[in-house]
Amino acid sequence: MSKEIVQQSGGLDNVEGFFTRGVHCGIKKSNNDLAIIFSEVPSAAAAVFTTNQVCAAPVELTRKYLEKNHHFQLVVVNSGVANACTGSRGMDDAKMMSQMAAREFNVVDPSLVAVASTGVIGDFLPLNKIEIGIKKAREFYPHSPSGKDTARAIMTTDTFMKEKAVSFSLNGQEVHLAGIAKGSGMIRPNLATMLGFLLTDAAIDPMSLQRALKSAVDISFNRVTVDGDTSTNDMVLLLANGQRGKRLIDEKHPDFIIFQQALNQVCQNLAQDIARDGEGATKFINLIVQGANKESDARKVAFTVAESPLVKTAFFGEDPNWGRIMAAVGRSGVSIQPERIKVSINGVPFVEGGMGNQKMTRNELRSVVQNKELEIIIDLGLGNAQFNVWTCDFSFDYVKINSHYS
Amino acid sequence: MSKEIVQQSGGLDNVEGFFTRGVHCGIKKSNNDLAIIFSEVPSAAAAVFTTNQVCAAPVELTRKYLEKNHHFQLVVVNSGVANACTGSRGMDDAKMMSQMAAREFNVVDPSLVAVASTGVIGDFLPLNKIEIGIKKAREFYPHSPSGKDTARAIMTTDTFMKEKAVSFSLNGQEVHLAGIAKGSGMIRPNLATMLGFLLTDAAIDPMSLQRALKSAVDISFNRVTVDGDTSTNDMVLLLANGQRGKRLIDEKHPDFIIFQQALNQVCQNLAQDIARDGEGATKFINLIVQGANKESDARKVAFTVAESPLVKTAFFGEDPNWGRIMAAVGRSGVSIQPERIKVSINGVPFVEGGMGNQKMTRNELRSVVQNKELEIIIDLGLGNAQFNVWTCDFSFDYVKINSHYS
Repeated sequence: MSKEIVQQSGGLDNVEGFFTRGVHCGIKKSNNDLAIIFSEVPSAAAAVFTTNQVCAAPVELTRKYLEKNHHFQLVVVNSGVANACTGSRGMDDAKMMSQMAAREFNVVDPSLVAVASTGVIGDFLPLNKIEIGIKKAREFYPHSPSGKDTARAIMTTDTFMKEKAVSFSLNGQEVHLAGIAKGSGMIRPNLATMLGFLLTDAAIDPMSLQRALKSAVDISFNRVTVDGDTSTNDMVLLLANGQRGKRLIDEKHPDFIIFQQALNQVCQNLAQDIARDGEGATKFINLIVQGANKESDARKVAFTVAESPLVKTAFFGEDPNWGRIMAAVGRSGVSIQPERIKVSINGVPFVEGGMGNQKMTRNELRSVVQNKELEIIIDLGLGNAQFNVWTCDFSFDYVKINSHYS
Repeated sequence: MSKEIVQQSGGLDNVEGFFTRGVHCGIKKSNNDLAIIFSEVPSAAAAVFTTNQVCAAPVELTRKYLEKNHHFQLVVVNSGVANACTGSRGMDDAKMMSQMAAREFNVVDPSLVAVASTGVIGDFLPLNKIEIGIKKAREFYPHSPSGKDTARAIMTTDTFMKEKAVSFSLNGQEVHLAGIAKGSGMIRPNLATMLGFLLTDAAIDPMSLQRALKSAVDISFNRVTVDGDTSTNDMVLLLANGQRGKRLIDEKHPDFIIFQQALNQVCQNLAQDIARDGEGATKFINLIVQGANKESDARKVAFTVAESPLVKTAFFGEDPNWGRIMAAVGRSGVSIQPERIKVSINGVPFVEGGMGNQKMTRNELRSVVQNKELEIIIDLGLGNAQFNVWTCDFSFDYVKINSHYS
């Protein structure tokens, strides 16, 4: 069998045994705001959650249910209201949301229902609208699934829908893996205002599934930063319903590596799209810090530079102001030697020996940063460790979007 | 004698035995760009410098000279070019700047001349223009000093000049203390793109002067954050020429406390002005974190909230989106209990028990954040430690100013 991972169009609809649908239920003025993901059978489940200590009720509830069952059969998601900082009423509302969905889709146990919310912090869930939305979605079952409507229903300030799908062979059987995600402000490593839902019809052992997800998230969603703000509501959830699996695969199976690779690829594609669609973003930046003594140093430098408002506004203005990169490196808290630092952008040397490129004019440098996709390499010249993050620039529109959000 | 500290108009011109002058020498298109501070006699000197490891040549040189002599007689400052990331040529240029100024003002030893620069990183100093500027300033000596022109000459994107002056009695003698400062982007604790020059005609022992300055800076300039970026060029310099001191005062003198209080007050006033004049700022925010287990916790929470782009843009939009404050507290890395947190703004409770104020409408809360000066108190409900920072909001103009700076 081939070890190839094949990109597919069609998003979530490719994955067998799942029904997904997004609808508009009136939490937001227009646009879809409620999503349902239903599996014909309880699915092995894995998830990672926000590290923010101010953690929304749906995150707490879904974490509790996952620890209890390691399986979900249904996921219900709303956008527009985050159900965070809502106290015990918030927790009751999240439970009610899972019960309403369980009833409508004939799931025997509400603890097999994951709930997720994204939107304004502090408001209570409009349960009547959510109930209407669940019923609406139910009417499409089973004949009119729509992964695209589902992807749209979890968006907040995202400007485009994020979905990826692949197929690959596992234990002699072709299986599918697809995911959707939303960004696009309050985006910081260790999850952010981001939601990601990944579905596969492969049959994977729940404990192996959890480790695979953790490992994929570390090299994908945890490498995105838009503004350094981590949200209260984030989760990435992976369901494996085994509908195309002949037998359960775990980490010891020789094919597990291809599952991990496929999962990494889908998560990385979605994560890059989140950076590309950062609030107000006009540029996609892949920032690579190399030549560090250790990975944690490279990571610290990478996030300090990627989150510097001065660096980000300079890129928005297409200003080749490399001094701001140097200043951010210098304040990162990592021990450096300025005269060893090299910085290149899209292969063009901007800094060598800690000083600007003396052979190129500012206009020549400017033409480099006018590209829409930038690869910045910062070489500290000290060791062999490296780390990369994906980010975007900081524009008028970021301020516009975020000054009038709630 | 009275222990009163009396505010004075007139800025630097009040302090006896100093000649200060700002001129335009052509580094910037218009506006003053070169400042001279000359003392009739060598002055006891104290300074604090940027903590950024990428440190500009003038900072390195002035630090070296200070360690050697603990006295300065002359300070020469330019704005427009930072002379940072300029290698050994940058150091030669900084030395040349001190030598040119020493020659022009008949200072016997160039190591009695402090140099400071602020502006774009990476460009070399235009020494010919700086020489013209020094000669121009010299023509005004001694009959036409101007503290206001001096304050203007150190500005970059500042929108108003920052000067403060006080008088008080020390050892039975009325003495003066005055200072000027500049902000207003790349502003972060432990100094930022900020320069501060403080002059007094009191006679203070250099070692005591250094400790007094360090202590004043810790509760003033180190509590300002505009954008979390720390610059390569910052310094605060304090000169005490003793022209009105009958005898040298040190920390053991009972009047030293009034000197410290006066210094604190001038530094705090200047620091608050820097926050008030943050790039693009429309609001001044005094953020107080209290009820922490220890001061370092309160500090971490304060800076995390004050530097959150989402919090800052919400204030710009006069959006009472307190959820972003809670989210920032939750990701600060400090252990908290969300249900114990209270947040008030200008005395109005926004959050109690970790939840929003249920008795007020969003419009009522909005009217509170429409004030131009905001006092935000975040009570963690855990202990007795507190910390405050001064900051501003994040506006379209911040992006505008910083996307086309260099």
